[in-house]
Amino acid sequence: MKIAIAGAGAMGSRIGLMLHQTDNEVILIDRWPDHIKAIRENGLIGEFEDRKVVANLPIYSPEEIVEDHANVDLVVALTKSMQLEAMFQDIKPIIGEKTFVFCLLNGLGHEETLSKFVPKENIIFGTTTWTAGLSGPGHAKLVGTGSIEMENLDPKGKEFTLQVLEVFQKAGLNPIYSNNVRYSIWKKACINGTLNGLCTILDCNIADFGSLNVARNLIETIVGEFASVAKVEGIELDQSQVIQAIEATYDVKTQGLHFPSMYQDLIRNHRKTEIDYINGAVWQKGKNYQIATPYCAFLTQLIHGKEELLNAK
Amino acid sequence: MKIAIAGAGAMGSRIGLMLHQTDNEVILIDRWPDHIKAIRENGLIGEFEDRKVVANLPIYSPEEIVEDHANVDLVVALTKSMQLEAMFQDIKPIIGEKTFVFCLLNGLGHEETLSKFVPKENIIFGTTTWTAGLSGPGHAKLVGTGSIEMENLDPKGKEFTLQVLEVFQKAGLNPIYSNNVRYSIWKKACINGTLNGLCTILDCNIADFGSLNVARNLIETIVGEFASVAKVEGIELDQSQVIQAIEATYDVKTQGLHFPSMYQDLIRNHRKTEIDYINGAVWQKGKNYQIATPYCAFLTQLIHGKEELLNAK
Repeated sequence: MKIAIAGAGAMGSRIGLMLHQTDNEVILIDRWPDHIKAIRENGLIGEFEDRKVVANLPIYSPEEIVEDHANVDLVVALTKSMQLEAMFQDIKPIIGEKTFVFCLLNGLGHEETLSKFVPKENIIFGTTTWTAGLSGPGHAKLVGTGSIEMENLDPKGKEFTLQVLEVFQKAGLNPIYSNNVRYSIWKKACINGTLNGLCTILDCNIADFGSLNVARNLIETIVGEFASVAKVEGIELDQSQVIQAIEATYDVKTQGLHFPSMYQDLIRNHRKTEIDYINGAVWQKGKNYQIATPYCAFLTQLIHGKEELLNAK
Repeated sequence: MKIAIAGAGAMGSRIGLMLHQTDNEVILIDRWPDHIKAIRENGLIGEFEDRKVVANLPIYSPEEIVEDHANVDLVVALTKSMQLEAMFQDIKPIIGEKTFVFCLLNGLGHEETLSKFVPKENIIFGTTTWTAGLSGPGHAKLVGTGSIEMENLDPKGKEFTLQVLEVFQKAGLNPIYSNNVRYSIWKKACINGTLNGLCTILDCNIADFGSLNVARNLIETIVGEFASVAKVEGIELDQSQVIQAIEATYDVKTQGLHFPSMYQDLIRNHRKTEIDYINGAVWQKGKNYQIATPYCAFLTQLIHGKEELLNAK
């Protein structure tokens, strides 16, 4: 299968590399000049737990994409949320009538963005539990294991989605065909919509947040807001199950000692966050549906305030 | 007049010292052992802009108060909000039938506490714009000028309140008889209820907070919650006037470069905050009156979370 990875950061590098190793024609697309340079010079280096792999993958910046790569079979979208629209604007030349887009971004509101570029029947949505990190440009650290849920947005897309599933299966990415990927996306958004913002604004790791007397009430209130908005979109979140999933992350033996990605982006690296696509998206949707979401609103504002104070780029 | 200062921190030291200098019989009451020791050994040292004063004022811990001091004319309450009740429990022996209490604490909910110890007609409420600092135990820094608004809670208390006004006038404390001290207390609570919590949780000074794009909307929302609750208590806050007063503090030539007291207490000194008597009080009152105050609730919870994380005492 001819596959473009649109957004070849840590997770894009992992998926691109694993798909490449099982004989797909993979190209990477990313905006980071040092990353492009390193991969062009030395290949993409993937450090698995038990082996090191060097993959000579073609990598382009979005503006470089030319018609040579027109009509890829699949674009796997893995940009930061706020870069999704600009990426697809730039890579229009490679998207043909039959090209599918598989969106693996965290957060909410991406369906609306992607619908501007591809018909709904060519969109697959998914979530993943894989993790990945970059230890430097061109250098991916690929420990642990994970799985990928996927589902076509429109029944017409099912046949091709099952082909994608097979390709991902061969690559060892442990795909699962989902019957309700929107539920999984909302559930994951709840986890990010509580831990990301709250650990960032309180300046603490997940276990420390979980130990607070106020933790339970805060997550109940925020998950409640997500659930009210999701309900209007036809998704009945099981709030106690979602809360259980959030509280499971407090364990120091699993994720407890980690600082969420938003913390790392903003507090450590002074980068703008994805808050507008998590709590901010719930706030905006809530406005449209006339549902009050004050905790999502306030948390979004606090994170934006912190971005300004830290001069985040 | 025989006056006890219940809570002789920075502000209590200022007021006690100034009242002492104009021939009132002043005693200080405080719980800080080093402060008591220093004042007993060297007197209370007041460093004004133009002079240094040493006042040999008697100082006691609340438990030491004995009947020697029974029936003081006036107790000026200047504890931290959370220490008010315990202080009055301890100093019961000095409160006679005719003793008045003049409450100068910031925050809300103190009327209910004081009413347990003195009849309403013996309570005076006030706010002050004086500032004061302690550079160490027994050592007060007393720069700048200010004024004190005061009003009896009950019409029966007016006669004595005017005597207190005269005593404060002589001491140079610039008292003003107020016709609506509750309005002033709520207005001041709005200023503290926005700047204190927000600067603390965002880790910034007042000017930096004021420069944020989200500042205006945050203060509008929080002041709106205060106003809804105040209205039930018969106080019609002029919200745009209150917002103007808040925004006036952003100026770097006045208070802009300062970190609010809550920031200093919690972030610098790891002390518990007065949030329960500001935003927390509005949240609790809102619950009683069935008024939603989600920003006050969330901010209170965030500050309590931060207190726990910093192991604040």
